[in-house]
Amino acid sequence: MTRPDVDGLDALDTPFALVDADRLDRNAARLRDHLGSLGVPLRLHVKTAKSVEVARRVHGDGPITVSTLAEAEHFADAGYRDVLYAVGIAPHKLPRVAALLRRGVTLTVLLDTLVQAEAVAEFARTEGLRVPALIEIDCDGHRGGVAPTDPALVPIGRALGANLAGVLTHAGESYFAYTPDALHKAAQHERDVAVEAATALRDAGLTCDVVSVGSTPTAHAATDLAGVTEVRAGNYVFFDLVMAGIGVCSADDLALSVVVTVIGHQRDRNRILTDGGWMATSRDRGTQAQAVDQGYGLVADLHGDLVPGLLMTGASQEHGVLGTRNGEPVPDLPIGTRLRVLPNHACATAAQHDRYEVVSATAPRRTWSRLRGW
Amino acid sequence: MTRPDVDGLDALDTPFALVDADRLDRNAARLRDHLGSLGVPLRLHVKTAKSVEVARRVHGDGPITVSTLAEAEHFADAGYRDVLYAVGIAPHKLPRVAALLRRGVTLTVLLDTLVQAEAVAEFARTEGLRVPALIEIDCDGHRGGVAPTDPALVPIGRALGANLAGVLTHAGESYFAYTPDALHKAAQHERDVAVEAATALRDAGLTCDVVSVGSTPTAHAATDLAGVTEVRAGNYVFFDLVMAGIGVCSADDLALSVVVTVIGHQRDRNRILTDGGWMATSRDRGTQAQAVDQGYGLVADLHGDLVPGLLMTGASQEHGVLGTRNGEPVPDLPIGTRLRVLPNHACATAAQHDRYEVVSATAPRRTWSRLRGW
Repeated sequence: MTRPDVDGLDALDTPFALVDADRLDRNAARLRDHLGSLGVPLRLHVKTAKSVEVARRVHGDGPITVSTLAEAEHFADAGYRDVLYAVGIAPHKLPRVAALLRRGVTLTVLLDTLVQAEAVAEFARTEGLRVPALIEIDCDGHRGGVAPTDPALVPIGRALGANLAGVLTHAGESYFAYTPDALHKAAQHERDVAVEAATALRDAGLTCDVVSVGSTPTAHAATDLAGVTEVRAGNYVFFDLVMAGIGVCSADDLALSVVVTVIGHQRDRNRILTDGGWMATSRDRGTQAQAVDQGYGLVADLHGDLVPGLLMTGASQEHGVLGTRNGEPVPDLPIGTRLRVLPNHACATAAQHDRYEVVSATAPRRTWSRLRGW
Repeated sequence: MTRPDVDGLDALDTPFALVDADRLDRNAARLRDHLGSLGVPLRLHVKTAKSVEVARRVHGDGPITVSTLAEAEHFADAGYRDVLYAVGIAPHKLPRVAALLRRGVTLTVLLDTLVQAEAVAEFARTEGLRVPALIEIDCDGHRGGVAPTDPALVPIGRALGANLAGVLTHAGESYFAYTPDALHKAAQHERDVAVEAATALRDAGLTCDVVSVGSTPTAHAATDLAGVTEVRAGNYVFFDLVMAGIGVCSADDLALSVVVTVIGHQRDRNRILTDGGWMATSRDRGTQAQAVDQGYGLVADLHGDLVPGLLMTGASQEHGVLGTRNGEPVPDLPIGTRLRVLPNHACATAAQHDRYEVVSATAPRRTWSRLRGW
């Protein structure tokens, strides 16, 4: 692959978020091909990049998942019409949901309690709307959801009435699956639990059109998605060191980095200081619990080639500290040298920035937008 | 103290950042009185709140410290004229510095290498400007700076020529001082090292008008600042659980919190789910290394009264998990209940938000702005 032209990057002030569009395209093609072979459509989760430009590039105007209503509204403004809000609905948020539905957006909500189901049904009745809702199913104890065998499942479905659209599960624990076999089992289990819940609802005479599963690790590891109607994944557009640490990608696939400048040396302490601290990288230390702790991130040169042995070992608000893992001398990088820091967790690092500078081997440098807030 | 009226807060969508202006005022008065008794002026660090409204309220239009040039420009737009950029200067940033100087802002830069000093002097010469610069002095090995005894100190001062304005040190390690005695010693040492460096420069025939010290812990613990010309502190306007953990404040002093809504229960796992995840609180786990690990934060009701035993034990992007420390049952908090999460690290939590909702016992609710970016 020809390397992107990075010349213009020297003119930008640091720190900033950089996207390698060629790596992004490669990551997108890989999952597209995989899900294509399984015959299940993707519902892109836009919470990682929060960028219409990224979503359009990897997914056109296909169905999306959002983590905030601000994302739902922003992507609706950009023309997206099939949006799943995949965080348990707080009843006070329903008026914003209704406003989107009235704009012609199929905005589906998520819930896992009878209280929420009754609030949704009552709101829908009062407003004269159908508020499509998925029941969150717990497949691994990671976060929310009811078990497919939970006696509350069918009553929640009944309380939703015509608003019931289906079930959703998220194998959040797959982020801690460290072997291909464990990843594959997590994917299989996620699928099995979702289908089991859908079957329980159907057996009770309820409609369950949607069977939604997904996480970046399981989306890549799944080999059988019979009964599943859609797969959600988002992190994979950028990937990160956590994903590399569990083997879903390699460090060479990481499409997001933070460009920083060397501002100091502490030769007696074998450290380099940069102008990129936790404000630029986030405080996410997601590799801390992995076999290889990558600190605040691995370090590459401005072209994207890893600087062997160098990692970001510490962070103040606007200072990054670079060091080596085993005390090897840090390389001689003059004041003013620009470097890329590869993030532990792309979702968290991207969230520290309002835009992306974008390079590729085949197009001029450009800037993509990013949304924030709720 | 009369409690702020929080009624209007039920109408706002969650999560959002909340500032208790009465606590803010109390924190501001405490440090103002303390520094007043020591006879040393404050140079407010605006990097915590990044809000002109906060700065004006606690410090009028007095001298400020910034952590980014974006802050310098933003506060200059608001009329601030004495600004210290307290991150080692990257030479490529000097044109933005010059633009501020030409607007009549006394923008002082920081550096700790001969390379930077020569770059500043050369730039100042070429532009026909004086670029006031402080030399960063290392007092505790926390981050950057040269030791006062470092043979490089005087050559750096000489290289700066007429641009040399003085010295600065920051006792960053005071964040890990856990007793009043350790805090006091850190403050005394910070002062001693700064004065020693200033003396070394003066003994070499150089001018050293500014002797700048500070951090929130040492600013409060100092009892003798002879020879110091200014104290920097910023976190104290909000305080946080890290500061409470080292005894600089109490949990009741915390002026910043994140308001979240209960969206689920997992009674079998003794957990409550909220709509405030790490996107709202940040990933900062600053109390992890303290005697009492506060998770992602303590939990209070909407009035600000702590819910005994409850803390935020886990975080996904938009989900918070609440639990108890020792397995006591979580309280019964219905879906829709609003809570405040008190942050580990105010600088990091505030950074996740674009504005503050502000309450006080004596004024109507209002919104204050917050800057981000570089």
